[in-house]
This record gives sequence, C-alpha cells and structure tokens, in this order.
Amino acid sequence: MDEKELLKCEKTAISLAIQCGKMMSNSSGDNKDVKEKDSFADLVTETDKAVENFLFSEFKRHFPNHRFIGEETSSKVGLTSDPTWIIDPIDGTMNFVHTFPFVCVSIGLAVNKIPVLGIVYSPFLNKLYTARKGFGAYCNGKPIKARTNCNSLNDALLIGESGYHRDEEKRNAVYRNLEAVGWLCHGIRCLGSAALELCSIAEGSSDGYWHFGLHVWDMAAAAVIISESGGTVIDTKGGPLDILSRRVIGACSEKIAKELSAALPIHLEYERD
Amino acid sequence: MDEKELLKCEKTAISLAIQCGKMMSNSSGDNKDVKEKDSFADLVTETDKAVENFLFSEFKRHFPNHRFIGEETSSKVGLTSDPTWIIDPIDGTMNFVHTFPFVCVSIGLAVNKIPVLGIVYSPFLNKLYTARKGFGAYCNGKPIKARTNCNSLNDALLIGESGYHRDEEKRNAVYRNLEAVGWLCHGIRCLGSAALELCSIAEGSSDGYWHFGLHVWDMAAAAVIISESGGTVIDTKGGPLDILSRRVIGACSEKIAKELSAALPIHLEYERD
Repeated sequence: MDEKELLKCEKTAISLAIQCGKMMSNSSGDNKDVKEKDSFADLVTETDKAVENFLFSEFKRHFPNHRFIGEETSSKVGLTSDPTWIIDPIDGTMNFVHTFPFVCVSIGLAVNKIPVLGIVYSPFLNKLYTARKGFGAYCNGKPIKARTNCNSLNDALLIGESGYHRDEEKRNAVYRNLEAVGWLCHGIRCLGSAALELCSIAEGSSDGYWHFGLHVWDMAAAAVIISESGGTVIDTKGGPLDILSRRVIGACSEKIAKELSAALPIHLEYERD
Repeated sequence: MDEKELLKCEKTAISLAIQCGKMMSNSSGDNKDVKEKDSFADLVTETDKAVENFLFSEFKRHFPNHRFIGEETSSKVGLTSDPTWIIDPIDGTMNFVHTFPFVCVSIGLAVNKIPVLGIVYSPFLNKLYTARKGFGAYCNGKPIKARTNCNSLNDALLIGESGYHRDEEKRNAVYRNLEAVGWLCHGIRCLGSAALELCSIAEGSSDGYWHFGLHVWDMAAAAVIISESGGTVIDTKGGPLDILSRRVIGACSEKIAKELSAALPIHLEYERD
C-alpha cells in the first residue's frame, strides 16, 4: 500500500472513529442491553455490536478489497497479508456500562500482517490518538512522546492488568504479577481499557504495561501509536511482539520493557488469536 | 457556624482551589524538585509545599480564627472543635510527577470535628467537585448522584488502593484484599488519588472504594461529597467513619459498603492521625 492510499485510510478511519464516539456518547449509561459473555464480569452491549456493524459496513463501502477483524464478529481471526482492519468497537465495555470514562473505539490497519495505522478515540475523555507508521504519534493533532528517558522500573509508573478472570489460575497469575512488580516501581494504576492504557504510555503519562490474554483488536491500533511515540511494544517474554499471541508489554523504552518482562514471575499461555 | 458563613467558606475555598489548579498546571511535568519522603515511591514536590503555603496564608487572611491542617505542615493533626480547614495540596503527587492526570487539590472544612464542606479540584481533568452539608454534591456546578441502586458487589465496579508501601506486611495486605475483592466484583480500577477515587463514586462512575493508611486530608473533603451524592462513607470495620482512623470505605450505598467491609480479609491498623 502506498503512502497516499494509507493517508486516505487514516482520514477515513478518523472520521468513522468520531462517528463511533457519538454512538457511544448517545447510549452511555443505558444499561438495559447488557449481556454476559464468559462470566458475570465479561459483558457486551448492543452498542458494541452497533458500532462494529457500522464500521464493518463503512470500511467495506470505502475499501471493498480490504479484510476485517472485529471483536464481536470474528470467532477465528485468520489474519492474512491483505490490508485488514482490526477493530475493537468498544474497548473498556465494563467501564462503558458503569460510565467510568476510560472507554474508546480502537481501529488498527495491518498490511502484510504488520500494523501500520492506529486510531484510538475516547469520546468521554475527548482524546483522539492517531499514528501512521513512520509519521509520529498524535493526540488531538499534537505530537506525543513516550518518556524515553525513564531509566529504571524504580522510577516508572506502571499500568497493570486488572483482570476480570473468573478462573483461579488466571486470577492467581494476575495478582502475583501485580504484587511482584508493584514492589519495584513507583506505583501501579488500572484503567480497564487496554488501548487507552497503552496510549497513556505513548503520551508519557505512564511508563509500562503488561497484559496476558488480550486479543489482537485490543493492541493492533495502540501498538502503532506507542511505536510512533518513541516507545516500544514487545512480547512478554522479551522478543518481538506477535500481535496474535495474546500477550504484550508496552513501555516507554526497550530497557523498561525488558526489565518488566524479567520482573513478571508468571507468564501465562493463551490459545493464539 | 451558620449557613451564611458556611456559604462564604465554600465560595472562598472554590476560588482558592482554582488558583491552586493554576499553580499545578504551571509546574506539571517539572520534575526537578521531587524529593523522597518515606521511600522512593513516596514523593513530595516543591509544588505540594507552595500550594499548601498559599492555602494556609489565604485561609488565615480570610478566616483568622479558623484552624488549619495540611499534609505538608502537620506532623500531628490535633483536630479540635474549632472550624478547621483540612488540606491535601496535591492529592496524587506520584501522578503529578508523572503527568498522569488524576491529580487534585482537596480542601475540607470540619466544624465540631465533622466535615461539612468539601472541594476537590482537578485541573488536568477539568473537574471541580463541591459539596456543602445538606445541599447536595456537584461536579462543575451540575448535581451528581452515586449509583444507589447497585444491589450487589457482583454488579459493582470498585476502586482499590494501589499501595505504594515498601513494607512487606502492608504490601501483603493490599494485594490479598485486592485479590479477594477482585474475584467478587465487576472489576477493580486504581487511579492513585484517594480524593478523586472517592469522587468517582459520588458521580456514579464506580461503586466502592477502600483504603487503609490514608490520612484525614485524603478523605475529609471527599467524605462530604460522597455523602451529599447519596453515597456513604464508613469505617472499614462497618461502623461509622472516624476521619482520624486512617481507614475508609466509600460506596454508592450502605449495602455495598457493608458487603465490601465483610469481603476484605485483612484489616490493617495504623496509628491514628
């Protein structure tokens, strides 16, 4: 895909993201359509589905040859080399249900299986994060930078996975990791939206993040935004990020990412996307 | 103190809070004056001290007979029945140092040892929470309500203490409590500012919060805001709140507060303020 085509993709995605934000704002706090997925703490709303359907049909209309992966419709991901939109219609559905403001739409575009475009928009925080590979990261049109000069976990503010798991092994892993890392760093925050948590690193408000079990639609867009902000995304074991692997470390620098990888005592394995 | 005098106190405190917000915004991200207090994860900045000095002298000028308790100047609290301003100049100092936006000034007024006025202002979130006993709670002038119809912890979004403790017993208590409660509820978030976390309950975005070891200046203002929003603040053991006890549960309802109290396996004791 050439630069001109990618720029067109970005402009279209930004315009659609803002329309999605309006759909979210219009139905915020309207809890009557909440349904449970895997457990009482894993929810989906009618708005999740409506936003995904809207994006699916709009991207199909604008880019008939592109493929599409979305949280609510893709049971098996099947990422190919074709240009593929990777969507989380509402990242932070639990927050959305509770009107806790960390809620966003996450729109990534992968070409040759590599994310090259990321749009993360939160209507409640009024923040539009954007990045196109090679052209920097922005929030509301202003350049953002990760805190690349953070030298040690001891000087880092981290964001941990808050873990909605109802499975004992997974729960144990979440809290053992939180405790081990919490002891080493300046503090741990939990916001409940992976995409916005990763964008917080991109804008220099926090320095590291880890998550086991998240999906490609939770990280595809934000991975571009972090990389373009000067930060890094890697696999939790320390190697290159594999966006289908269900695990990620995002950090302000390679050094902090590697320290964080080494500090996590439990590395869970999930079935790949 | 009569209603007219209390209203004058509120107007003065709001005006001063907004000026404090400007002092914070002007020095945000300016890390050169950071100092460690009890550990590398307990910090104070020159701005903390400057904001407290400003409030101390302004309140003294407006209300020469009032007393004053502030985080940075009061080694022993000594709360009397006199009207007493209870101040945290920067609640969320760690966030402030990292430009993580959950940072506020917290101004409470206690009369006969009971908080009757609360102002919590976050310049970075652009949120001004206010409450005067008997007159409701507001954010940016609009009434706010706790989610009083939340019926069970299973349906609650909670905010937990993130714990900067470097002491093994305290650390253990923080994570045992997080894990025990995390299993029962919709999810746990950590924002790193007690006053703003309590205000999140007051505006209905979350449903419960607990903290062991916080100080009177962390809770005095927000306690009024929660109570006036229809929510509740109690002691972690389930009895009435004692603002000098170093512990609090805030919740959207008495029922959730009591359920949360019963669900916490470890109740730490701290030396009273």
